[in-house]
Amino acid sequence: MSESRWLWYPGDFERYHAMVQNFSRVERGCAWPAFWKSEGFRNRVMFRRTYTLKEETAFTVLLAKDNVGYIACGENKYPAGERIVIGPGNVTVCVHIASVSCLPSMYIVGDTVRSDEGWMVEDYAVKAVRAASSPLFTEAMRDPTAWTYAEKVFEPIEKREVCGGVLFDFGTELTAAVELTRLEKPEEDVTVYLGESEAEALAGGDCYFYSKVDPASHRCPRQALRYAFIPDIRSSEVDARAIHQYIDIPVRAAFRCSDPLINRIFDVAQHTFMLCTGCFFLDGIKRDKWIWSGDAYQSLFVNRYLTADPEVEKRTLTALSENDPVTTHINTILDYSLLWILGVHEHVTAYADRDYLDFIYPKMESLMQLCLSQRDQDGLICGREQDWVFIDWADFDREGPLCAEQMLFAQALKVMAVWAGEEKRREYEEARSTLLRSIEAHFWDEEKQAYVDSYVSGRRNVTRHANIFAILFGIADDERCKSLLHSVLLNDAVPKITTPYFRFFELEAMCRMGLLEEVLSEIRSYWGGMLELGASTFWEEYVPGKPLKEQYAMYGDPFGKSLCHAWAASPIYLLARYYLGLKITETGYTVEPRNDLLGEADCVFPVRGHQVHIRIRDGRTTVTEE
Amino acid sequence: MSESRWLWYPGDFERYHAMVQNFSRVERGCAWPAFWKSEGFRNRVMFRRTYTLKEETAFTVLLAKDNVGYIACGENKYPAGERIVIGPGNVTVCVHIASVSCLPSMYIVGDTVRSDEGWMVEDYAVKAVRAASSPLFTEAMRDPTAWTYAEKVFEPIEKREVCGGVLFDFGTELTAAVELTRLEKPEEDVTVYLGESEAEALAGGDCYFYSKVDPASHRCPRQALRYAFIPDIRSSEVDARAIHQYIDIPVRAAFRCSDPLINRIFDVAQHTFMLCTGCFFLDGIKRDKWIWSGDAYQSLFVNRYLTADPEVEKRTLTALSENDPVTTHINTILDYSLLWILGVHEHVTAYADRDYLDFIYPKMESLMQLCLSQRDQDGLICGREQDWVFIDWADFDREGPLCAEQMLFAQALKVMAVWAGEEKRREYEEARSTLLRSIEAHFWDEEKQAYVDSYVSGRRNVTRHANIFAILFGIADDERCKSLLHSVLLNDAVPKITTPYFRFFELEAMCRMGLLEEVLSEIRSYWGGMLELGASTFWEEYVPGKPLKEQYAMYGDPFGKSLCHAWAASPIYLLARYYLGLKITETGYTVEPRNDLLGEADCVFPVRGHQVHIRIRDGRTTVTEE
Repeated sequence: MSESRWLWYPGDFERYHAMVQNFSRVERGCAWPAFWKSEGFRNRVMFRRTYTLKEETAFTVLLAKDNVGYIACGENKYPAGERIVIGPGNVTVCVHIASVSCLPSMYIVGDTVRSDEGWMVEDYAVKAVRAASSPLFTEAMRDPTAWTYAEKVFEPIEKREVCGGVLFDFGTELTAAVELTRLEKPEEDVTVYLGESEAEALAGGDCYFYSKVDPASHRCPRQALRYAFIPDIRSSEVDARAIHQYIDIPVRAAFRCSDPLINRIFDVAQHTFMLCTGCFFLDGIKRDKWIWSGDAYQSLFVNRYLTADPEVEKRTLTALSENDPVTTHINTILDYSLLWILGVHEHVTAYADRDYLDFIYPKMESLMQLCLSQRDQDGLICGREQDWVFIDWADFDREGPLCAEQMLFAQALKVMAVWAGEEKRREYEEARSTLLRSIEAHFWDEEKQAYVDSYVSGRRNVTRHANIFAILFGIADDERCKSLLHSVLLNDAVPKITTPYFRFFELEAMCRMGLLEEVLSEIRSYWGGMLELGASTFWEEYVPGKPLKEQYAMYGDPFGKSLCHAWAASPIYLLARYYLGLKITETGYTVEPRNDLLGEADCVFPVRGHQVHIRIRDGRTTVTEE
Repeated sequence: MSESRWLWYPGDFERYHAMVQNFSRVERGCAWPAFWKSEGFRNRVMFRRTYTLKEETAFTVLLAKDNVGYIACGENKYPAGERIVIGPGNVTVCVHIASVSCLPSMYIVGDTVRSDEGWMVEDYAVKAVRAASSPLFTEAMRDPTAWTYAEKVFEPIEKREVCGGVLFDFGTELTAAVELTRLEKPEEDVTVYLGESEAEALAGGDCYFYSKVDPASHRCPRQALRYAFIPDIRSSEVDARAIHQYIDIPVRAAFRCSDPLINRIFDVAQHTFMLCTGCFFLDGIKRDKWIWSGDAYQSLFVNRYLTADPEVEKRTLTALSENDPVTTHINTILDYSLLWILGVHEHVTAYADRDYLDFIYPKMESLMQLCLSQRDQDGLICGREQDWVFIDWADFDREGPLCAEQMLFAQALKVMAVWAGEEKRREYEEARSTLLRSIEAHFWDEEKQAYVDSYVSGRRNVTRHANIFAILFGIADDERCKSLLHSVLLNDAVPKITTPYFRFFELEAMCRMGLLEEVLSEIRSYWGGMLELGASTFWEEYVPGKPLKEQYAMYGDPFGKSLCHAWAASPIYLLARYYLGLKITETGYTVEPRNDLLGEADCVFPVRGHQVHIRIRDGRTTVTEE
């Protein structure tokens, strides 16, 4: 018999916590909830299961925070929290619950009647479905309306008097509650200023977070920080530590090669990624902490090689999806809807997770229908007035349909066709054929040997983005890929990619084209460059050559840049996938490493339940599976 | 300049409080949330307004409970709760708010920038709409996430020792918090048992509500009661009073005629109705306290003549409606969806409330589309597996489409055609023509001179319900109405209506057919019968002839019957509409009383902003308007 766990209506746990997460942004005392359609969970659900009992059995139903309800067994009604005895015979147990404010969820303690697999749940709108749960919420005392964090204490590696106050350096970026372990001043007179950088912590009101200390716990709220500064105090008057609070998702990878810089880059990327990974994949830990589809898409590739935890992937993908009817794009961004479809495909493939596909496929379908409704007469996808056509922070020629968006659309249609039923498959394939013909006719420039941003403007502007997607998604054939390499990727006349977000796609495209030496050199210089500036986590953006103090600004804010950003962890994926050559497919995995680039290597990566151990020594590869 | 008030997204206030209301049922320690699709409010909204300011102006934004957000003025961001200064010039003020658990709502204190009319609000899914408010929430301190009740203290009219304890009688039914003003026993040893009847209060665990006393306030939770019983205590050890808590909606009617019994019936009906009317129209105050569409429909007719408060009508109708997509029937009941459409029509007509029509019309449209999708090949409406085809607690022949349901459907189509645009109007009129033909062909029995319940079974069973609707909705012409009077309404062989719910429709049909003497006699005997049994409010059901102690049971529960039920207040409507003859139309009102039945009469009824004073003396009527 399986264990009890908290049960809820599928998708509601993720949507509830997505709101909690997306509404948690605070900057300089200003709350800043995410600016997209945010939807509720179901407020009234009913769980049902029929037991055939040989003898009498007892159980107790527990409800989550702010839930009300009752238990019906045959004709009898019972309150929650009380011991109920039923049987022998056939008994249908119905647990009716509701909550205006919190996730409706229930847990049953009992020998036979318990909240394990086999419960159905209904919302009074559609037919009953299988109840959902999480391996993180299996204990009766762990109410699923709030996360319980694991804690790790970090003592400061440095404490010094500066600017009339005391600065603590905890040695690395954390998501922590700063706790004052000694304070010889009234608590109400003390404000704690936090910083990802020393400069931010010392910037007074310009730093993102500052707060009073809770008198009961002596703690500040959980926030991102490496440094904490307390003004108007002497070192002898205060001591502090940081209580790092995190969801404990075990790292199952280990990476060592002959190049200490690459090893260090892997380690710092891992630390960066794990800080951004918990309830969901977050973009970063300091600033918005919102769940972004484009960022999550890249996290899927890293996570696969680092934790191989399917749960955080499913939580994130589900949280991004919307209840029907789907009327808006994910995070308001057209390309983020398309990347979400690709992301689901990546997850389902990497974990052979057909159960999740069954659950999420109707959402893919709804979202794709919205996309299909936005086609022009040539089958090209166009943003509506309310849509954000993003792709990247870059100077695109945005007149008319944008080429890069079409590339994503083509790939999303390809992916949909893989999982669709016969009729829909044909619809998607036809839409894709039309689209590919239009891309070729409108955007391919034979003279420039490149795809142009816009065909409407007549300016024939070339950026890298669409061309990178053409390589990654097989829209350009081998011969054209070779052309694109020279006409675009290695052509300095085409503006450089400026964001690590799109660098991910560019570097992967270069790997696909076999430019592994160039990519390795880029990893050394770009990520190594951040390390040289003292980074303990990788940044949202890094501008080589700029001095450290000029690196912190972004989005027009002096400390707007996130210094711990998930998309900066992509070397993990690139190293595992292309240098160790581990490719994970729906049916298994293959290992085809480049033996000549990392010197010796001794690495372990997870592939579903297994650990794949890859050793390179003297140019020879050994692969063992544990 | 208009006053500030709390603002929210239209419909969300009602849906939020509808859930609070519908999840508040508690019976014998068991919470019993309503068993239908219950939907959330929007969790993230943004208010926007552009001001042209001649000079600098200051304002402060307040947020409702558990709301977070910020205020954007041009490029600047400000937290809530702080004084913001803007201008001069054109400034767009955006208030961004979110809440996972409570209604998102904001209030602005300021001279020029304030939360009055003119604010738009958007939910990131559809275009911005006008923000909504309530005249009950205009004060900054009155947070709209909770109701503030007016209070009136009721001292017991009797206190006596019985069954080893003390029984208090507060003289009439109330929705009150019982407060122990003296207690010479530890509070934890005391349980208070409540009852609508003395029998219920003394029934121990069989009574609906019992509770401990809150040690801080010395009060029990707000509940319906007339009697309170405390066991194991002596009269000298305890004193109690009842704090009646209510929404203060002024009664604007007065009724006096020569018949003291009719006067008393009017007064008790008024007390009954006002107890059931507050945040919403409730069915009753003791038991489920849910918002039922069928009950609310009847309350509309009474309320029009008693308070003429359009706000409680709109709150109720909106609370019953569902966000799109509409997939379920209101309260799960097919006929309650149809009655809701009729109810909106009644409200819009009685108050000439085109503003509300503009807001609610899309919901009428969605619901009607669901109904239209449930037609069979003859255009008859059929329940789906998950639908409750109710009409009344009666022994219908329920095989195939039910005739009474078709009558309601025909009337709903008629009402929709009144408000629809040209194209939809044609669709509804055609659907109604087909339907009427099918009703005539399938359900009219020439031999019985009656509409039968079912044509599928071949049993040709006649009940009153469809025939009553045929009269009320003009489906039978004058001649046929006369036939129906004798073949059904006055035919003792056709089973009697057993519920006051459907008695409303039957008595109104009789009034329409001119049987005012018969109806008045029925009012005297049925409602007078309850008074004879000591009723201080009118009941959900009354079975003439049964002794008092056998009147309390219903739904298989010894105290299941509600003794204060809104639908039992219908004499107010019947007297005002047919005896005083006051008919309210969209353009005004007419008065055509029956001068010969009530003796002298001196009555006032509200018609929108006016008070219409109707006097009957010596068989002559005087009408004055104040």
